[in-house]
Amino acid sequence: MKLLSFRRPDGTPSWGIAKNEGVIDLGARAPGLKHALWAMTSLAEEAARHADYRLEDIHFLPPVPDPDKVLCVGLNYVSHIKEGGREPPPKPIIFTRFGNAQVGHGEAMVCPAASETFDYEGELAVVIGRRCRHVKKADWESVVAGYACFNDGSIREWQRHSGQFIPGKNFFRSGAFGPWIVTPEEVGDVTKAHLMSRLNGIERQHATIDDLCFDIPTLIEYCSTFTQLEAGDVIATGTTGGVGAYHKPPLWMKPGDTIEVEISGIGILRNPIVAED
Amino acid sequence: MKLLSFRRPDGTPSWGIAKNEGVIDLGARAPGLKHALWAMTSLAEEAARHADYRLEDIHFLPPVPDPDKVLCVGLNYVSHIKEGGREPPPKPIIFTRFGNAQVGHGEAMVCPAASETFDYEGELAVVIGRRCRHVKKADWESVVAGYACFNDGSIREWQRHSGQFIPGKNFFRSGAFGPWIVTPEEVGDVTKAHLMSRLNGIERQHATIDDLCFDIPTLIEYCSTFTQLEAGDVIATGTTGGVGAYHKPPLWMKPGDTIEVEISGIGILRNPIVAED
Repeated sequence: MKLLSFRRPDGTPSWGIAKNEGVIDLGARAPGLKHALWAMTSLAEEAARHADYRLEDIHFLPPVPDPDKVLCVGLNYVSHIKEGGREPPPKPIIFTRFGNAQVGHGEAMVCPAASETFDYEGELAVVIGRRCRHVKKADWESVVAGYACFNDGSIREWQRHSGQFIPGKNFFRSGAFGPWIVTPEEVGDVTKAHLMSRLNGIERQHATIDDLCFDIPTLIEYCSTFTQLEAGDVIATGTTGGVGAYHKPPLWMKPGDTIEVEISGIGILRNPIVAED
Repeated sequence: MKLLSFRRPDGTPSWGIAKNEGVIDLGARAPGLKHALWAMTSLAEEAARHADYRLEDIHFLPPVPDPDKVLCVGLNYVSHIKEGGREPPPKPIIFTRFGNAQVGHGEAMVCPAASETFDYEGELAVVIGRRCRHVKKADWESVVAGYACFNDGSIREWQRHSGQFIPGKNFFRSGAFGPWIVTPEEVGDVTKAHLMSRLNGIERQHATIDDLCFDIPTLIEYCSTFTQLEAGDVIATGTTGGVGAYHKPPLWMKPGDTIEVEISGIGILRNPIVAED
């Protein structure tokens, strides 16, 4: 099942289920997808209905527009560690992004006026389904609501102002999340999925999820040891080799470009790049 | 004027104005303090009313229980830089805390099972009053709703797992924020205020706010260059010398302790320390 948030043709925000022929509107069932993730069981019946809108008639929002937390993992693919000439880290490198740092599928990612060093980072996002803490590795599946594509868009210059990544990872509307959340039973073994990024149609990143240094069960155990996870929280599991910063010369995204993050079995997250107003 | 969030004697959450004789309940005016900060002008009339509850009959919550963002500044007092043997940083060191990492005045801060290295950090919190971006230093006052005390409680061991501070700065209920937000006209020149921390009644930190490396106008300009600030967002401006980590031997907080952060003209934020359940 594919869960999404969107604006209706009349402009009002809602959430629902994406099907091949269109979208089922569940805005009347709960105030948002975040609040409904715990109630996944009742969604199976809704999914059997006819679509309310065609996919081309809606405006996609980030699947969880108002996450309590977005936890991101740095240097978590062997190929990305190698391209930076680094060693695998002894513990997960955790930083965060605000909700307003992401746009939805099809929305414009904003190249800021403050710096030209705008880079893509294609990633797998794991979406948490229920409040939890101290989750053991063996229990990881019980807290996962599904998976999505994520673009951890980064302003490299501001990422290096200090040792903390926060400013360079949180420029307003510099990342993307979507197009929808695909539930685990539809994805199957996510470690076998292929993760790819394409800038203007040219493939720049390609890996399988089993190249992760810290796997999904380990990340859930680690994060839930310090914080209480909530339904709708996102763990962006890190990016793979091929980011623009390590191209010679560096390959920065600029207004007019199109960036895509695709994960097999999940979908394609496509965003145009625009200049800041 | 002192603005606060609290639980009523019947246990339901609300927000309002704190006066010497008690609390004025404004829960019926707006869904929360975050939503009301833009409407400060109408609060002057409400403040003239008689109190609805006595202060001792309410349970304090963090003044903004659900901030969109809590931005924290590392190494921002000359005395704290010196005690760590460091140089002043060239750019502000920005990291973040989740809303669930803070408790309100009087609530218990939780010493986690994962590590004993639980440290206090008394700080001034600047609370943002309206949505803003690209704020120039000269305009900083127009976006500030008020000030509060903040305890950036830290698990030092987890702060050093990687270069990113996030895990050690975000243990569940490891910090505190409160007891209320004091509006700027009541505080006057905040740079003259004294910031003090006391562990079990013994003063361990004492500085004036004018010892800041990056002052409040600079922090607002820097942060609003990368992110869109919202009403209720918090900038915790950094801690001063005297943290427990630099005592010999280190002075960690343990269950049964009481930690206080006081800022002259703002108030006292007092919290007992308890063990994790």
